[in-house]
Parts: sequence; C-alpha cells; structure tokens
Amino acid sequence: MTHLRNKAICASGFHSPERGVIDRLDDVLISIDENGTIASIHRHGDPNYRTIRETRAAAGELVTLPEGSYLLPGFVDLHVHAPQFPQLGNALDVPLEVWLQRYTFPLEARYEDHAFARRAYRLLVDDLIANGTTTALYFATIHQDATRILADTCLERGQRALIGKVAMDNAEECPDYYRDASTDAALSGTRDLIDYIRSHPDNAEKRVLPVVTPRFIPSCTDATLEGLGTIARDCGCHVQTHCSESDWAHGYVLSRHGMTDTASLDRFGLLGRRSVLAHANFLTEKDVETLKARQSAVAHCPLSNAYFANAVFPLRAALEKGLNVGLGTDISGGPSASMFENCRAAIMASRMLESGVDPRLDAASRSTFGPARLDFRDAFHVATAGGAKALDLPVGQFSPGYRFDAMVVDANADKGTIRLWGDLDIGDDILQKIIFGASRANIAGVWVDGRKLA
Amino acid sequence: MTHLRNKAICASGFHSPERGVIDRLDDVLISIDENGTIASIHRHGDPNYRTIRETRAAAGELVTLPEGSYLLPGFVDLHVHAPQFPQLGNALDVPLEVWLQRYTFPLEARYEDHAFARRAYRLLVDDLIANGTTTALYFATIHQDATRILADTCLERGQRALIGKVAMDNAEECPDYYRDASTDAALSGTRDLIDYIRSHPDNAEKRVLPVVTPRFIPSCTDATLEGLGTIARDCGCHVQTHCSESDWAHGYVLSRHGMTDTASLDRFGLLGRRSVLAHANFLTEKDVETLKARQSAVAHCPLSNAYFANAVFPLRAALEKGLNVGLGTDISGGPSASMFENCRAAIMASRMLESGVDPRLDAASRSTFGPARLDFRDAFHVATAGGAKALDLPVGQFSPGYRFDAMVVDANADKGTIRLWGDLDIGDDILQKIIFGASRANIAGVWVDGRKLA
Repeated sequence: MTHLRNKAICASGFHSPERGVIDRLDDVLISIDENGTIASIHRHGDPNYRTIRETRAAAGELVTLPEGSYLLPGFVDLHVHAPQFPQLGNALDVPLEVWLQRYTFPLEARYEDHAFARRAYRLLVDDLIANGTTTALYFATIHQDATRILADTCLERGQRALIGKVAMDNAEECPDYYRDASTDAALSGTRDLIDYIRSHPDNAEKRVLPVVTPRFIPSCTDATLEGLGTIARDCGCHVQTHCSESDWAHGYVLSRHGMTDTASLDRFGLLGRRSVLAHANFLTEKDVETLKARQSAVAHCPLSNAYFANAVFPLRAALEKGLNVGLGTDISGGPSASMFENCRAAIMASRMLESGVDPRLDAASRSTFGPARLDFRDAFHVATAGGAKALDLPVGQFSPGYRFDAMVVDANADKGTIRLWGDLDIGDDILQKIIFGASRANIAGVWVDGRKLA
Repeated sequence: MTHLRNKAICASGFHSPERGVIDRLDDVLISIDENGTIASIHRHGDPNYRTIRETRAAAGELVTLPEGSYLLPGFVDLHVHAPQFPQLGNALDVPLEVWLQRYTFPLEARYEDHAFARRAYRLLVDDLIANGTTTALYFATIHQDATRILADTCLERGQRALIGKVAMDNAEECPDYYRDASTDAALSGTRDLIDYIRSHPDNAEKRVLPVVTPRFIPSCTDATLEGLGTIARDCGCHVQTHCSESDWAHGYVLSRHGMTDTASLDRFGLLGRRSVLAHANFLTEKDVETLKARQSAVAHCPLSNAYFANAVFPLRAALEKGLNVGLGTDISGGPSASMFENCRAAIMASRMLESGVDPRLDAASRSTFGPARLDFRDAFHVATAGGAKALDLPVGQFSPGYRFDAMVVDANADKGTIRLWGDLDIGDDILQKIIFGASRANIAGVWVDGRKLA
C-alpha cells in the first residue's frame, strides 16, 4: 500500500456517518483527489463501477485491499495530554493528589528541556499514528518552545492535530515550578502559539490547528479565563478544557464561582461550536442545554474516568439528547494510547452504569441510572465521526468532500488479536470483532489526507 | 531463545508469590532441571552467583534475556469456554437469552463435527499460548470426541490444561439439540473423559488433567449433580462450574433448591480443595465461609461480568478474607483472550465498585460498597500465583520445585504497545507499564515445563 492522492482504493470496510448507522462497504471504489479529499465513492453495482475500476487499474491508479483487510476511518482522539506520554501506564495506583504533584506536574515541567520534548513528542505522535489515530486534540504544556516542537512534530509526521499551549496561572492551585508567570504570560503565550501555527510554512493545508487551552477552571485566574475567551472569539480558534470531571473539581468551581463549570465557561465566552470539554461527568440538565445551544462538544474518556472521575459519563443519554460527543484516551490519566481499548472501555462502563456495581444490593436498588448500555456501533461512531463532528472537521467518514483519513485493519496480521470465522461472522459482526479485538499489530496502514503515514 | 530444560536462564522480571508482594528479579539465574522444574534460583550477589553463571555459560547452558525483556510467570486462565472461541468478540450487543439461544448453544452444538472441533481448538490453544497463557481451565462441550480432541490438542501444543466434558441434562433449561441425553450419559461421559485423559499415552507428565464440569445448577438435574459429586470424590478430580453469576442465575437456584449455589454445590459434594467456581458475584458471608472451609476457589472474570453478571465481584474483599481467587477470560462471555486485558478490566472494575457509577447521585450515596480498589500488583498476583494456588498446581511463580511456566515480555517489540522511559520508571513501574500496556506483540517467548511453545 502506498500514498493515495490521485488514486482510487478498492476496499471493504465500515464507517458510521450517523449514530446508530453502520454503513458496510463491500469492495467500494473510493477516489481521492490531488489534495487528499475524497472525490467520489462508487459501490459495487453502481452503473460506472466496473468502468471506473478498470480505467483506474489500467492507469496504475488503483490500490486494492487484500482479503481480510478492512478500511475504517482513522480515529479522532479528542483528549490527549501530550507531555504525559512518558508515564503512560504508570502511577494509576496512587491517589489523584499524588498523581498530580509527584508524577504529572514534575513530568510536564521537564518540557522546558527541548531535547526531552522532541524525543517524547516524536514517540507519542508515531505511536498514536500506529494505533490508527489520525486526528488528535492535544494539551501540551505551558512552554512556548516545547509546544511549538509538538506542532512541528505533527507537521513533520503528517498527523492531523489541534494543539494548545496550556494556560494555568492560579498560584493557589498550581505549583511554583510549573505555572504561567502571570495572566499576561498565559495570554500572550496563547496568542504566540496561535500565530506560530497559523503562519507555519509547512502548514499551508491547515492540518495543524491552534487551540485556546485553559487547563481547567481551578488552575486559572478569572482574568486569564476572561482573556482566553476574548482570544477565542477574536481568533475563531478551537477551545479545550476540562469540565466537571470529578466530585472535587465540580465542587471547587461551584464553591469559587457559585455556578457549574459549564455556566462559568460560558460567561467567559469559552463555549462555542469548536469547544471541547473533557469528561463533563457531572453536567446538570441546564448544562446540557447550554452545551447544545452553543454546539459545544464533550470528550468522553472512559478509561481515565475509572481512575479519576468517581463516576461514569452517561454517554447514551448524551447522544440521545443530541449532544456532540467524541472519545478520548486522556493520556496519561487513561493508561492506553489505543482508541480501540477506549471503545471497549466505553462499552464496558456503559454496561456497569446500567446495571450498577454493588452485588450486596438487590438488582433494583443497585441499578439506579436506568438504560445506559452502548454497543460497539455507538463506540465506533463516537471514536470516528462523532469526534470529527465535535471538532467541526471534514473527517471520520468516507463521503465525498471529506478528507481521506483512514486506517486498514488486517484481521490476519501476524501477532494480531482478531479471529474471523467465515460463516459465523455476518452483517456487522466483523466490525464488532475488530472493535473488541484489534490491537496495534492489526493496523496495517494509516493515511491522513491520502498520505500514508504508517 | 530456546528450550530451557537442563539449562539456566539469566533474566530480569517480576513475580508475585503472595498477594501484595512484587518480587523484582534483577539478572537472576534460574536453573531448570531435565523435567522442566525449577531447581534453583540465584540472585545477583549470592555467593555462588558468578561461578554458576560462568560454569553454565561455558557449558553452553545459559540463556540470557536481552535488555528490555522481562520474565514473568505464565498466566493461569481460570475460566475458558473453549468451544466459544470462534465467536470471541461477537454477540455482546444482545441480551443473555439471545446470546445463549441464538449464538452460544448452536455454536457449541457444532462440535459434534470433529473437523470443526480440531480447527477451532487448535487456533484457540495457539492463540492463548501466544497471549502468555500457560495454564487454562477449560469447559469443553457435551461431546466426548470433541473434548478428547481438545485434550489431544493441548498435549500436542504443550499447554498445561484442565479440561471438562460439560454435563448438562436438564431438559427444562437446555435446548433439545444440545444436552446430555440422560443423567447416565452425563455421568458416563464424564467418567470416560477422565479415563481418556489419565491414560493418554502422551500424558505421562500429567500436564493435562480432567475436570468434573457441571455447566451450572440450572442446566443439571439433581441426579447429575449428585452423581458428579460422587465422581469428583472417587476420582480426586478438579471440579468447575458457575456459581451465582447473575441475578437470574442466583435467584434460580434459590428458587429451585431453597439455598444459594454455594450451599447447594456443597451438599452435592462438589466443593473441595480443587474446585473452581466461576464468577461467584453474589456470595453471602456464609458462602464465603463455606468456600474457605472447603478451600475452594473463585475464578473472577471482570470483562465477562460487565456484560452478563449485573454487578462487580468484590475481589479485594475476597482476597482480604483469604479466599482463593484467580482470574479468567471467560471466553467468549468476555471478549478478549488476553489475560493482560483482563487484569486491566479487574483493576478498572474495582475502581468503579469503590466509587460507584451514577453521576446524578452525590458522592456518598453513589459509593455504597466502601474500599474496593485494586492495583496492578493484585491483578498480576491473581492472574498468576493466585490462579495456580486455586488449582493446587506448582506454577505461577519462580521458586525451586515449581514448574518453569513462563513468558518473556519484550518492551521494545515491533508493533508492541509498551514504552519504557529510563529514569521515569522506578521500582515496579516497569511491571505496571507491562500490565497496563502489553499486547500480544510484546510476548516474545512462552514456556511450559521448560519447553518453548511460542
């Protein structure tokens, strides 16, 4: 397999443009233009299918996936703390306070060291690509230089990325050795990074985008939150932050601002069509209405939530209410870089939210929430098209006008972890087996904008 | 790497002989005898260490693990439905009744076909070995021939295995096309399999053992349960069954027998030192005392429980009470053949049991169970030494007299999913990263009885 600009690929696979819909692709012909945009899709049986296929093949412009390989949209990882990658899978045996103070803040502070940043970010971006993540929404650190290195790395490696310099200037909640020196520093650093990314000579295609990134309300002064709201409005940037993640964080904002995270972010002008709130576990009904009105999105991080959120985000309810939701690994609050593992965790957590957990209670008192279960279709949707919609980007599905950001899963890969079974796997069973079984070894190819990255 | 009988291996790694203890091995010398038993272990700094190492090296009898590779005990998977492997990762989007009647019973019935059985069991056993599972406790099907094929396969491939012909003769709960024709058929089939395995010409080392296997109380008549209790006592076999898995199953036994699963199994003589009860989510305090008195064990299956159990098994409480507990994949009620993934699920589920799940409740009413969290150390212990103790087998740890059943995890493996980070990974952080990160691609070698299988 190879680059696919100005080519066509003949493939079987799956995508999920709408929640609840799995569109099975059987030997479809996807034509990709010179910019990496999907120009047309022809299905077996379409009038021109055979002609186009033969013409492209004769011109040497047709790539055909082998039997047992399946084309999926690349994953959109809606919440990644890029600097935390070196401790991925570590420190989940300690309480949040220890996790932050002993592990996470000292690690993030190390990105003052450019060489460290370069090495860590290169490994991270390559690992995410190898795991099928074609778009990532990144928190970086407070450092201007290291955050630029992350942008450079994504441009160099070809991943679609949205990157924010983290703003955190509240001396009461941030350590002395790791916080913005002042509100001015937080705001000017944010503006500088926006300028850097937007004017980057290698970024003419705008594959990397800047993001206004208050860490979360507790770590920011009101002046910084207000200033960032102004920058977001002036620049039309994406915005990302954490929202009502844990009992502590939710309670902190209620106590400091006398309102929920959502209400407070809204009054600072931080909720818009391109805002993504990580976690959002403790939204009120009114918060949900506010997010819908602003068309803002939630990044659901099921693995991380098991460790740090004290509750399960009610994803099914959110989808049924029409909220925009995508899926995030929350590296390294979640211990896996794999969106497949996060799909599985989202499904598992939804079942536990529905049934409850305490076996000493009778079924009726154990199960307090009501219907909450999700299946692999929902998880796949939020991990691809859902995340893309959250970001307002034309990716996450195979449709004309969308960018060709995709992966190939080889069910027969050496060291792979999927076993298909001919007559047993019917309908979308193959997708179900991929979602529940796939590991990195099964990912045989990854493209962004039609360019092959892995 | 190679066979290790009559050799020594110099390795770094980890094992957990007791709960709460992670014993880090730094360049230890493990000498393995001609039968695959660990003869001696010498640590760096022991008086004879250097001499033994040089002598074995000079004789060409020393195998040294490369940097970045770690020796772990092989996994003991305490609950596998071998015939369900072809649907692994499928059918988890449907209710239990549909799962059983439309998918699982028809699939198990297909094992009347020897060719099907041979193909499926070969793939299963090879995949489990490749995932680091050196011992598996298998439910087969009702079929004598197919179950013998499973035993043959394990003997041929070299996996340590405990195998039961499933007994299920209750016409009210089992489908016509898939049940033992009579109590006699269930009992004589069980006896025949025991004889077959014990007298198998390739089984002189007793690496494969027979297991008395009533599916669960609902699928057995009382006569069969009683007869199986007699067989277990007469033959001194292992016993396996399901126990109080879901609200339905738990309630069914209460209603039919007027007592819990545990009490009922006990009166039939099915609880002994070598009995393993899958799930056991709804044990009463009295049940726990009974299991402790009988020294019987529980197979905790965290992934499967999320789909079919309606609650989380309180593993930490069970360990603190001194119950024998191991970990099981419950293929295919659980969607993964990986014990690493099940370790992760056990940890995640324990956190959710502790915090509760429903974000609409305040923290105090959400968290009904109390302290329940486990860390990677506990999960690693139950997946190795815990399961071995449950089965009363000398495996699961590196100690003289134990069998050399082991795996090597290569943190740098191509397509692997672990990133170690020099100065950041201290103490048992490397083990934590392995537990949270490893996938099949990281498993670079697997041995049973000192024989290299993968």
